[in-house]
Amino acid sequence: MTDQTPIKTSARSGGRNARRAARAAPLDAATRPIRAGMEGGRYKPLTDADVLKIHEAALEALETIGLCDAPPSGVEILTGAGAILGDDGRIRFPRALVEDMLAKAATSITLFGREPAHDLLLEGARVHYGTAGAAVNMVEPDGRTYRHSTVQDLHDAARIAHELDNVHFIQRPMVCRDITDNREMDLNTIYACCAGSTKHIGTSFTEPSFVPDALEMLHMIAGGESNWRARPFLSNSNCFVVPPMKFATEACEVMEACIRGGMPVLLLSAGMAGATAPSTIAGAIVQATAECLAGIVYVNAIAPGHPAIFGTWPFGLDLRTGAMTVGSGEQALLSAGCAQMHKFYGLPGGAAGGASDSKLPDMQAGWEQMCSNVMTGLAGCNMVYEAAGMHASLLGFCHESLILADDLIGQAQRCVRGIEVDDATLALDQMREVCLGGPGHYLGTDGTLSRMQTDHVYPTLGDRTSPKEWVEKDKPDLVEKATARKHDILSRRAPSAFDPATDAAIRARFNIHLTV
Amino acid sequence: MTDQTPIKTSARSGGRNARRAARAAPLDAATRPIRAGMEGGRYKPLTDADVLKIHEAALEALETIGLCDAPPSGVEILTGAGAILGDDGRIRFPRALVEDMLAKAATSITLFGREPAHDLLLEGARVHYGTAGAAVNMVEPDGRTYRHSTVQDLHDAARIAHELDNVHFIQRPMVCRDITDNREMDLNTIYACCAGSTKHIGTSFTEPSFVPDALEMLHMIAGGESNWRARPFLSNSNCFVVPPMKFATEACEVMEACIRGGMPVLLLSAGMAGATAPSTIAGAIVQATAECLAGIVYVNAIAPGHPAIFGTWPFGLDLRTGAMTVGSGEQALLSAGCAQMHKFYGLPGGAAGGASDSKLPDMQAGWEQMCSNVMTGLAGCNMVYEAAGMHASLLGFCHESLILADDLIGQAQRCVRGIEVDDATLALDQMREVCLGGPGHYLGTDGTLSRMQTDHVYPTLGDRTSPKEWVEKDKPDLVEKATARKHDILSRRAPSAFDPATDAAIRARFNIHLTV
Repeated sequence: MTDQTPIKTSARSGGRNARRAARAAPLDAATRPIRAGMEGGRYKPLTDADVLKIHEAALEALETIGLCDAPPSGVEILTGAGAILGDDGRIRFPRALVEDMLAKAATSITLFGREPAHDLLLEGARVHYGTAGAAVNMVEPDGRTYRHSTVQDLHDAARIAHELDNVHFIQRPMVCRDITDNREMDLNTIYACCAGSTKHIGTSFTEPSFVPDALEMLHMIAGGESNWRARPFLSNSNCFVVPPMKFATEACEVMEACIRGGMPVLLLSAGMAGATAPSTIAGAIVQATAECLAGIVYVNAIAPGHPAIFGTWPFGLDLRTGAMTVGSGEQALLSAGCAQMHKFYGLPGGAAGGASDSKLPDMQAGWEQMCSNVMTGLAGCNMVYEAAGMHASLLGFCHESLILADDLIGQAQRCVRGIEVDDATLALDQMREVCLGGPGHYLGTDGTLSRMQTDHVYPTLGDRTSPKEWVEKDKPDLVEKATARKHDILSRRAPSAFDPATDAAIRARFNIHLTV
Repeated sequence: MTDQTPIKTSARSGGRNARRAARAAPLDAATRPIRAGMEGGRYKPLTDADVLKIHEAALEALETIGLCDAPPSGVEILTGAGAILGDDGRIRFPRALVEDMLAKAATSITLFGREPAHDLLLEGARVHYGTAGAAVNMVEPDGRTYRHSTVQDLHDAARIAHELDNVHFIQRPMVCRDITDNREMDLNTIYACCAGSTKHIGTSFTEPSFVPDALEMLHMIAGGESNWRARPFLSNSNCFVVPPMKFATEACEVMEACIRGGMPVLLLSAGMAGATAPSTIAGAIVQATAECLAGIVYVNAIAPGHPAIFGTWPFGLDLRTGAMTVGSGEQALLSAGCAQMHKFYGLPGGAAGGASDSKLPDMQAGWEQMCSNVMTGLAGCNMVYEAAGMHASLLGFCHESLILADDLIGQAQRCVRGIEVDDATLALDQMREVCLGGPGHYLGTDGTLSRMQTDHVYPTLGDRTSPKEWVEKDKPDLVEKATARKHDILSRRAPSAFDPATDAAIRARFNIHLTV
């Protein structure tokens, strides 16, 4: 991609040389075969009738079951908007209220990067992939070991993800276990992520009282509150519900504070199908949909049109053991089905895809990560969270796996881009030219050469050599190649590091654990 | 699956014990969560308008470009049916002829196993996965080595595939390179596959003159010609075209002989997009469609309704190097797009999915194999060929990878099965029961316990342990587990071995290289 050799213009000289010359042409962002925000949606796991059934069931759940445990502020906001507080402490949502708030909700939002090149436009079936999660371990594939994750690991993950074209946002994927104070952990999480990348960042806050400090740091990074509010480059991943159908009291207070601070919110409902959500895929989707609709009412009752992501994240459960499983086919269906519901509402939405149950970046990890990544993408999910680096059913994060996911997600994105059908791509003219008195092959046709870079995705570390070449190259190991790339990225200065004055100011104001 | 512990009836006793008891229940084939022939089709890579454009372009290609190099017998058959032989030696197909033959073609066919349990019904969007290919190497992941494949390797592959629930048919995946005589190689291929499994077998024949011997052996295995003709358990994988738009003269003669012998044929068009087919996905699909339509005319002009599979197998090419690539996203789109064309014609169809460019069963292999396997399945492909064990862009076959593909394909099948939406699965009643005065979780509900086995696919070798359990189990390696299973399967007597009298008769008549 960065090869600067001039383009050879005599493209018709044919064969291998012409291909080699053409492939040296650098591509600008607009002609790259894949990019953030490609349109998905050609996979519809649900029929239209099924979508309506799920919608009706979600409305009925909101109207008849409702949610308990809203904070006093939330009770006031929700009842003020028209929700009904029952004697049993549950807040129920008349369907007209839900419909009104759906009409007020933002249907198109931009998640800003600190650099505009990383802005993400969430609307329609535009698909983006990124990290997320709260892993507590770092996976070291070299020694096949798990160890506690640290703030340095998180910073390194951000720096690596910053370099990967196909990782479009960086929601905090792991917890800084070397920081025991929750306030310091939350603040250092922001610092570690933002100092590592100018892509859009996502994170959570343990307590509502931490939000003002977080906003203060964000204002410093942005160069003032007005800059921050103009382009908020960090969003709040907010587990505002404790499924089934309970508000998470403190998280709701965090959400209110974030909304007031101009921060986009991810309304995250993370039920486990068979434990905290129905075991059936349809049922888990119904509950997640109902919970996120409650969140939409909540957000839009505070600030109509505030940027919010419909975060239906139902997770799979291995019913034999009661353990979480995120790498399964059931998981891929859960997330793809949710994505279709987002499209039905016309709301920006997100779901979990791309996580693995395997402990290491092995073949199982590959098939599990691809399955849910490609299916949620094909279903048109705006935000595919946990798409890279996630192992051990969300308990482990792996830098090498993150790096390999760039190839994996790139392939999924190529699938999301889909099949273009027009006169040029149908290629009848080429077929005639080649077959009727022509060379009998398409190797040197304009239709082949001109599309070499714009139509095809080539892996960075994925291996396509012949067995013979592979032996000659000393049988390169995929994970070792990823480790080498990791060391290469981390050996350079972070391109997105803060300027010295800002960094000094932040370090003077907050206890930053990351060493310079 | 084979645990015979009696079912515990007090299913409401809740929690882990109840789940453990319930999971011990053996499942009959009808209640298994996945099985051969699940209905796909919810993924439509092409719009309806795109499908029509491809259809029209294929008809125009047949009408105006046509195919050359038909054998004299083929020229007679095709012109007799209404095709037009031009002065340029090309046979062109008026669209009315194609439409007439489409009306005569079999829309539903059964590929028989030697045991009825393995019969495959090809119709609609019913999906089956199996092996195929002509790899020339065996991959030994233990030593990371490639070596020439042998008849013993092929037999072992058949024996292993026979034991794998999610490998539904066994088309010969590799070439017996230890047999230099082509006639003996073809005959020993039949022997090695059929002696290893009673699932449906596919193979090819180098020359038409080998077909009578092959039929003789098949009659012996079947216990007579009438038995063979009643339930032909082997089909001819026939590369009847040399793309672009040329008949493969000898293969056409093989096809004619096979049809006369009552053998189903796979009409296999294996163009390489960018070399022997247009580089665009749509163009490669057009050409493959046109070629297979010519095959449909050919077959049905000989024997209307003869079982034939619409085998559009366009392969991807790495345009930078000119090397084949089968693990790419472009490949997944090629095969999924073809599957949609099969559905449009209402014909039994097959395409390639599940092959990898990686040399070893590593993470790349996992993501590549899942990508095309799940996408072709979701697109409703009747026969997904090369779905298991295939590496190095079709040059290598790996027994361990074949074994791991059972889990991988099982997961893809779960995705193909999709999301059931009805009153029970919507689970509003459960939600009410759990949330309103209930336990607040779904662990012990009937809806969870009763569906533990029927809704969920559990991997055989895929690992779902926690990091702690994984360490306690001494960090099991996925590929090593597959090697252990291989040794276990091969250490037992093949359950599908021929009875001694048949075996002796075959060995007396033919030079069988496989030692007893």
